[in-house]
Parts: sequence; structure tokens; C-alpha cells
Amino acid sequence: MTSLDVLGIGNAIVDTISRTDDDLLINAGLIKGAMALVGEARADELYELMGPTTIISGGSAANTMAGLASLGAKAEFVGKVKDDDAGREFTHDIRKAGVAFDTPAADDGAATARCLIFVTPDGQRTMNTFLGACQALQPEDIDEERVAAAKVLYMEGYLWDPPGAKQAFLRAAKVAHTNGRKVALTLSDSFCVGRYREEFISLIRDGVIDILFANESELHALYETADFDTALAALRAEKNLLGVVTRSEKGCVVATGESVIAAPAFPVEEVIDTTGAGDLFAAGFLAGYTKGLPHEKSAALGALAAAEIISHVGARPQKDLLQLARDNGVLL
Amino acid sequence: MTSLDVLGIGNAIVDTISRTDDDLLINAGLIKGAMALVGEARADELYELMGPTTIISGGSAANTMAGLASLGAKAEFVGKVKDDDAGREFTHDIRKAGVAFDTPAADDGAATARCLIFVTPDGQRTMNTFLGACQALQPEDIDEERVAAAKVLYMEGYLWDPPGAKQAFLRAAKVAHTNGRKVALTLSDSFCVGRYREEFISLIRDGVIDILFANESELHALYETADFDTALAALRAEKNLLGVVTRSEKGCVVATGESVIAAPAFPVEEVIDTTGAGDLFAAGFLAGYTKGLPHEKSAALGALAAAEIISHVGARPQKDLLQLARDNGVLL
Repeated sequence: MTSLDVLGIGNAIVDTISRTDDDLLINAGLIKGAMALVGEARADELYELMGPTTIISGGSAANTMAGLASLGAKAEFVGKVKDDDAGREFTHDIRKAGVAFDTPAADDGAATARCLIFVTPDGQRTMNTFLGACQALQPEDIDEERVAAAKVLYMEGYLWDPPGAKQAFLRAAKVAHTNGRKVALTLSDSFCVGRYREEFISLIRDGVIDILFANESELHALYETADFDTALAALRAEKNLLGVVTRSEKGCVVATGESVIAAPAFPVEEVIDTTGAGDLFAAGFLAGYTKGLPHEKSAALGALAAAEIISHVGARPQKDLLQLARDNGVLL
Repeated sequence: MTSLDVLGIGNAIVDTISRTDDDLLINAGLIKGAMALVGEARADELYELMGPTTIISGGSAANTMAGLASLGAKAEFVGKVKDDDAGREFTHDIRKAGVAFDTPAADDGAATARCLIFVTPDGQRTMNTFLGACQALQPEDIDEERVAAAKVLYMEGYLWDPPGAKQAFLRAAKVAHTNGRKVALTLSDSFCVGRYREEFISLIRDGVIDILFANESELHALYETADFDTALAALRAEKNLLGVVTRSEKGCVVATGESVIAAPAFPVEEVIDTTGAGDLFAAGFLAGYTKGLPHEKSAALGALAAAEIISHVGARPQKDLLQLARDNGVLL
């Protein structure tokens, strides 16, 4: 059994992306920058409002695993697709990105998950997810040996939405800790935090989570404050937690009870589509972390990967990130 | 019945695009820059060789109609999809691009056509088309009133591949001429010319075609010469034909028996993906032509539209071409 750097569990989603103006978001009742869960009827309605689309595999943790592989790390993804066109595309794309993916596809039930993403001229993305087959992920889909083989188990907060996935998450976390591995969680979205705030706080305080990824608004939602310093202090008060907070163009903060490190963002010529910015930041950070690099270096890798992803449409890297890191002197 | 600027008939295709290196093309036995027809088994085999993909609606004449609509022209497309996921995507995308599209989808039979496109680092595209539902296009799919309503009937040479489509093409051409309209043909691909050279020559000499679009290699294939001036002279010897020949970065030549006009290419910062360059050139040229602009102006519009399309992945415009033409002083 080969060892892994990171095993990620998440919703297996194919993104349908379209450029739009802000008016459409308002008229459609969409909350700009957020991820909303939608049923099939609402998904069809929103699709009708979209302009011409580009279809690219996505899914938060899946994007992170693709980023890790592009940075030369060994990554595996666990998530549920259906055996349909979109499911086959997702499977093809993640494997071809160099990520191991062996979760059996569902033969029946709901279609492979789709995320309808509206990208406004400022590059901001507004997401509408039809979870579909993701609802079928079960604890049995977790291979304990693979979890035990991974330095870090990485999970997205969005997993709290489909009920079986949450159980899979908890089982995997237990296996990871039994084997002396680290467990990382990304809070995913401030509305997702709103839905599951108390459970996420419990996970942190019960020691289920060792590394927490969040952006500013997610951190504010978690600690119910609009003040960054207050939220950061609350984060630092959590015992044995490594907190990694992204702040868009202000860079990021890597915080523990003992120390706080601020690291800059990587310059971007033009922000085209912010989808996947957090996912790819996590990929870069974890690539450094699993190599044993200092946090400053890991943060720089995260910033570089995030900068690449927001410079084009879609949340999967278009460049060889390891080469990009070398070209920019972030890695030797 | 509203009048139309251009009615285009073509293969209704969804593109699956992936970046690759030249070695893969050689190992897979692909002819760089060409369009090859593939069966389902070969398509599956090639898909397995592709890296992660981006899926965007395509189809040569369909791309041209999308470009025309983006330039403010009234365009309609005729082509056959199946009522499957890809067919619904194609239908959504072309309508949302502002193009009328009402050809009934096939309920059964082969799946919606797919084109597997390998894009090398130089931006060149190598295409492999599974024609699928395009084979089901029939003369009955031509609405004579719509053909009669269009200033120009535009058809792709690729239509010669599915047998029913060729009959649809001939029927539409007859209707157009009966109504005093112009008929335009693009030669599509030098290998396509190789397959149907004598038929294409007959179409031109029998007066079925009024406007011919070709790139250099297609023109060379048509007149069986490797010398551009020889080919151009042969083109100019055709009676009552307006010939529009694209020459990549060398711009284009608009030729009749009486005159030859050379027009420059539009500068491009970086060539990302040449898919659709010819399609969008034709769109720009026809936008000018149907407005009654001088050929120089039409050629400039073609060059502008082609420049936009090769600066990103996919063969459908990402910018408002009318605005782009105004911003660049090509249109007022």
C-alpha cells in the first residue's frame, strides 16, 4: 500500500460556469459570493437564466487534491458520482489530474452533482449546488487503510450537507487519529458555517480537527463576530489547533496559541474567476505542510496556487503548479 | 416571419478540450491541425489519452452563428443533436448566444456529436469528431421559409460527411437561390476537401456557391497545388465567386475575378487555442458583408473576431464582439 500525502473527502461535483452581470444575481434572488443548495427544479430554473456555459470538473476538496497532485504531492479523493456522463467526466478529470480516485460510482439514484456558477465581471463566483449522487456517500466508502496511509486527512465542511457523508467524515477522522495522522477541515462557506456552527465548534473543541482552513467571513461566522481580531483571538484560544485564515488580496494568517504569522497574497494580473481560490490555497499550504516546510513557505505555496486558479475560468489548475512554484522561486 | 442575416447549417457538436504535448499526438497517430472522423470505440480510446478537460459547445457553423450574433447580426442555426445531456447543453448554449435554433432533437439513435480536441502548447488544435446524432440531419429539417428569409445561407464542408446533411445542404441552396439569396460554403478542413474535392469543385462551377471561405491549406487541397499564387489564380478564375482565404498571421485575401484585396490579421497577445479561428473569421466577414460594408471592413471584422477566439480555450466568443469592434475602432 503506497503512502499518501493527503486523502481528501468531499462532494464530487461538475461545475457549469457562466459569466453574468450583477443584475441577474439580484433578479434571481442569489446571494453573491455564497454557495446555495438547490433542488433539481431550481437548478433547471437557474440553468435557464445562465448564458453560454463552460463545463469543468470541480468540488472543493477535489479541487484541492488536483492542486496537491499538480504540486507533486500524492493525493487521493473520496466522493460519490453516479455512473452517468458527468460522473464519467469527473472520474476522468480527477484521475488525469494525477489524483487517485476509486470510490464506486452509484448505479442508480440521483444524477452526478452539478454546481451552477455565475461569475460576475469582478471575478466573484456565486454557486448553486445540486448535490445529487453526493447524497449517496456512506461510511462504507471510506477505506481505512487509505486513510491510515495519508499524512493528512482533509475534509470540506460542505460534507455536512449530505447526511451519510458526515458519518463518513467522522469515521475517517477516527481512523486517522488512531493512526497518528492529522485531520484538516475547511469551513467551505459562511452559510455552511451558519448551518452547522455548533457542530463545527464541537469538532474543534473535541480534538477531531487539527488544522482548520477558513476565510475571513467563515471565521466571522464561526465565532459570531464581525471583527477580525476578535475572531482570530477566539481561533488562537482553541487548544492544539493550527488555524489557516485566507484574506483574499490581504494574504493569509497562520495562527496557533503560540504564534501568528501573516503572509502576503501572490500578485495576479487580472482576476477572472475566484472559484477555487480557497481550495487551491489549501492545496498549496498542505503541499508545504506535508513536506515539513515552515508555515511561511507553505503559505507562499498556497498563495501561488490560489493566484493561478483565479486567473482563469474553472477551479482546476491549468498550469503545472510545481513548475510555476519553481519558476517563481517559491520552491527550488 | 422575421428576416435573418445568416442561416447556418452544420454539425451540432459539443467540444471536449484538453491541453497536451506534441508527443501524445504522435503516439496516438493523430495528424496535427486536422479534423479526423472517429467511431465510438476510437473516441473512447482517445478520451482515455486526454488530460483533464474543458467542455464547451462547438461545431464549425454553429460557432460562426454565435460569432454573428455577438456582432449584432441575426443568425439562425440548423443542426441535429440528440435529446441527451450534451444535446441540451448545445441547445442551451447556442440559444443563449443569441442564435435561433429550432431543429428538433433526435429522440433515439446515436448520442449528440462530440469533438475531442487536443490543444498543443503552440495553440494548434487537433480534432477528432464522433458525428453521432449529426448523421440524422435530413432535408426535412430545412425550413424553406427560414432559408428564404436569410440574406446568406452558410454551410460547412463538414456537412458532406453525414449523408443526409449533404442532401439538406443541396435543398437549402436551391431554396436560397430561388429567393435571390447568396450561398456561402466554408471548405472546413484540407482532409475534408480531400474526401470531397470533386464535389466541391462541381458545386462552385455549377453556381451553387457564391461565397467560398477557405484557409491556405484547404485552397491548396482544392486546386491540388502547394503554391499559393497558383491556387489563388485558380480561385479567381471561377466565375461569379467571391473567395475569402485566411492565412493565419498573414491575414486574409478577398478575391474575385476582378480584384484581390489583402487585409492584415489582428494582433494577438498570446495564442492559446486556435479552435474556431476560421469559424469566427467567417462570422466577422459575414457580419460586415450582410451590412453591406466594403470587403476591407468585413475582413477587419473577421480578423478581430478570429483574434478574440484564439486568445482563449474554446470556439465560442467570451467577449461581446460588437463592443470589441467598437472599442478597437473597427466599427463605429
